[in-house]
Amino acid sequence: MKDPVYKLIELTGTSTNSIEEAVGSALKRARKTIKNLSWFEVTETRGSIEDGKVHRWQVTIKVGFAVEE
Amino acid sequence: MKDPVYKLIELTGTSTNSIEEAVGSALKRARKTIKNLSWFEVTETRGSIEDGKVHRWQVTIKVGFAVEE
Amino acid sequence: MKDPVYKLIELTGTSTNSIEEAVGSALKRARKTIKNLSWFEVTETRGSIEDGKVHRWQVTIKVGFAVEE
Amino acid sequence: MKDPVYKLIELTGTSTNSIEEAVGSALKRARKTIKNLSWFEVTETRGSIEDGKVHRWQVTIKVGFAVEE
Amino acid sequence: MKDPVYKLIELTGTSTNSIEEAVGSALKRARKTIKNLSWFEVTETRGSIEDGKVHRWQVTIKVGFAVEE
Amino acid sequence: MKDPVYKLIELTGTSTNSIEEAVGSALKRARKTIKNLSWFEVTETRGSIEDGKVHRWQVTIKVGFAVEE
Amino acid sequence: MKDPVYKLIELTGTSTNSIEEAVGSALKRARKTIKNLSWFEVTETRGSIEDGKVHRWQVTIKVGFAVEE
Amino acid sequence: MKDPVYKLIELTGTSTNSIEEAVGSALKRARKTIKNLSWFEVTETRGSIEDGKVHRWQVTIKVGFAVEE
Amino acid sequence: MKDPVYKLIELTGTSTNSIEEAVGSALKRARKTIKNLSWFEVTETRGSIEDGKVHRWQVTIKVGFAVEE
Amino acid sequence: MKDPVYKLIELTGTSTNSIEEAVGSALKRARKTIKNLSWFEVTETRGSIEDGKVHRWQVTIKVGFAVEE
Amino acid sequence: MKDPVYKLIELTGTSTNSIEEAVGSALKRARKTIKNLSWFEVTETRGSIEDGKVHRWQVTIKVGFAVEE
Amino acid sequence: MKDPVYKLIELTGTSTNSIEEAVGSALKRARKTIKNLSWFEVTETRGSIEDGKVHRWQVTIKVGFAVEE
Repeated sequence: MKDPVYKLIELTGTSTNSIEEAVGSALKRARKTIKNLSWFEVTETRGSIEDGKVHRWQVTIKVGFAVEE
Repeated sequence: MKDPVYKLIELTGTSTNSIEEAVGSALKRARKTIKNLSWFEVTETRGSIEDGKVHRWQVTIKVGFAVEE
Repeated sequence: MKDPVYKLIELTGTSTNSIEEAVGSALKRARKTIKNLSWFEVTETRGSIEDGKVHRWQVTIKVGFAVEE
Repeated sequence: MKDPVYKLIELTGTSTNSIEEAVGSALKRARKTIKNLSWFEVTETRGSIEDGKVHRWQVTIKVGFAVEE
Repeated sequence: MKDPVYKLIELTGTSTNSIEEAVGSALKRARKTIKNLSWFEVTETRGSIEDGKVHRWQVTIKVGFAVEE
Repeated sequence: MKDPVYKLIELTGTSTNSIEEAVGSALKRARKTIKNLSWFEVTETRGSIEDGKVHRWQVTIKVGFAVEE
Repeated sequence: MKDPVYKLIELTGTSTNSIEEAVGSALKRARKTIKNLSWFEVTETRGSIEDGKVHRWQVTIKVGFAVEE
Repeated sequence: MKDPVYKLIELTGTSTNSIEEAVGSALKRARKTIKNLSWFEVTETRGSIEDGKVHRWQVTIKVGFAVEE
Repeated sequence: MKDPVYKLIELTGTSTNSIEEAVGSALKRARKTIKNLSWFEVTETRGSIEDGKVHRWQVTIKVGFAVEE
Repeated sequence: MKDPVYKLIELTGTSTNSIEEAVGSALKRARKTIKNLSWFEVTETRGSIEDGKVHRWQVTIKVGFAVEE
Repeated sequence: MKDPVYKLIELTGTSTNSIEEAVGSALKRARKTIKNLSWFEVTETRGSIEDGKVHRWQVTIKVGFAVEE
Repeated sequence: MKDPVYKLIELTGTSTNSIEEAVGSALKRARKTIKNLSWFEVTETRGSIEDGKVHRWQVTIKVGFAVEE
């Protein structure tokens, strides 16, 4: 069996509701073009503010997935 | 048009419920005295523990806002 | 009165729902064997992915507690 | 003689031309309200893009100044 | 309206003249294949030396752009 | 009861004698204008040198204090 | 002559034997689709454990390569 | 001779007087249960404030000690 | 099924031959007392020198393992 | 052919005009005593302020050069 | 007037008494061969342990000094 | 007995074979001019690529050695 190789890409997902939804939003987009999404790690949590409230969470993640032969 | 200048301040918001609420709590206080709150980034996520449960989330953010002329 | 001393241990809690639940899950296990859990800080937020969705949040925390005499 | 104490504030200056101008822009605003600006350090260099070109440099600095008695 | 998702890629632009030009050089190449370039941040500033002078600035940036539906 | 909010400011205290005195010097100045100083963390320890000896310790701290309603 | 531009991608190579082999494994996969691989830097060294022994080294690298005109 | 293996634990020692005493306080507690304490490194220096003065230094250290066969 | 919880401990393994052997040495000791060792990450690579040659590699790792109910 | 070995030294160059000039200033001094200067990386960008303007850019670089046999 | 250039060297000073003395010890040695020592910053604070007490503080500093023409 | 003082220098060793050999290569060169090499730590692991394979490992280390009276 071959040694698997993974690629990591960096995405910023956004949501008006929560950090979890922002991550889910990024993954939802990624799975359209990438198979085998395997793991992620959060590298930055930011947000925009409107009227003194969080307008949109902006959560940056690195997503790892197995690269096919 | 002038080049805008922003100031960043650091706040720790707290909440017994969630990270999102702790951030909202910090912004709620900030907007009392600062106009033009524009963005934030989370720099630290901590909490106090009571009876082996999260008692209070303590989320530190940097908040940026445009400085007026 | 003596100067208190604290010990910090590192745990990764997991949850299929949220970051907050993953932290709570780690604390729930820790309080079985450790008294005086006092504070925590989040040091890493990761997760596994299945079918292009977050399968399980994996949140690593440092937990501090007073060491008894 | 007393031991001097300094305060550090964080500002993001912007410029359509250069990093140096963005820093200058932040200092120009700071000196309107703060005397004794003494030193700065660059903590982040970012920018916005329009039409595939740098639209505006956004340079964040910490600025130190002596606090008066 | 959908929550926008952004992708970040990392590029090293080079220039014999300045940091600003090196960043511009990276963006110039990126816009050939990517629409919607939105922001960048400088992550590393290096350079090669010849005859004891800067030969070529090498500036690494992360560039973010909106991913289309 | 409301969720408390804290502000963090950054100060550099100085002393010709010790790190501890430099921190104390910064706090002494801060308490003139800020009530409820609560905690600090050391973020940088530097110093100036004269005649090959430490002339003045320069210790930078972040100081947290509860923001009133 | 134009100023060269480089792209950096992040890969995790794996090997049951050594860190060097894990890096080689990642490069072997990368060269199938990318010409002009130029340099790499190791950003993380991890591994899985089975029966109390290293099962598989997982070495994450950033790989740089010249982008063609 | 076998290759020695060391374990590192993280402790926060406290003192109302000095950083050195806070470290000493942590070590004093550690040696009650651990033999062969070998080295430490300071990872964080914080403190609590009362009446605008340092109330208690809180110094976090990693302590290494040889693990017996 | 319950959400698994993992504990991370930090060990320094040593070897006169290689980084890989130093990690293996740390794991060999850990498995004597810990079941379910699951993963590790290298956090520091150091060494002692004798006669101008590497005498002993000292590799610090964090080791994660599932905590039993 | 022998494996080349490089030494890195750290210098702070200064200039009243620009970051680029400050780096050039450091290299100009270095080449007086060191042959084979090969590459540099910027590790810190600071500056002194006078009359609310940048007085002198202080740019710290690591400079690498091949060590002769 | 020429733009001054500074060199930074890294030293570890030691003392059985205090962090301050360890820094002083390093500077005392440095001034034997280097004129114009100007500033330092502490980059690491470690120590050796004997009989469960701090045996020797080991404080690493970067020291800057003006390089002569 | 005097408190020992150590100096740290930074070297990049290279090897076409392994990380260990690259470190050994740097030390081999260092011992030609420096007595009392005592310890090292790896600060960066990079490499050049040719034909899609590691051409030369480039491992940067800090080397510490006792400074003589």
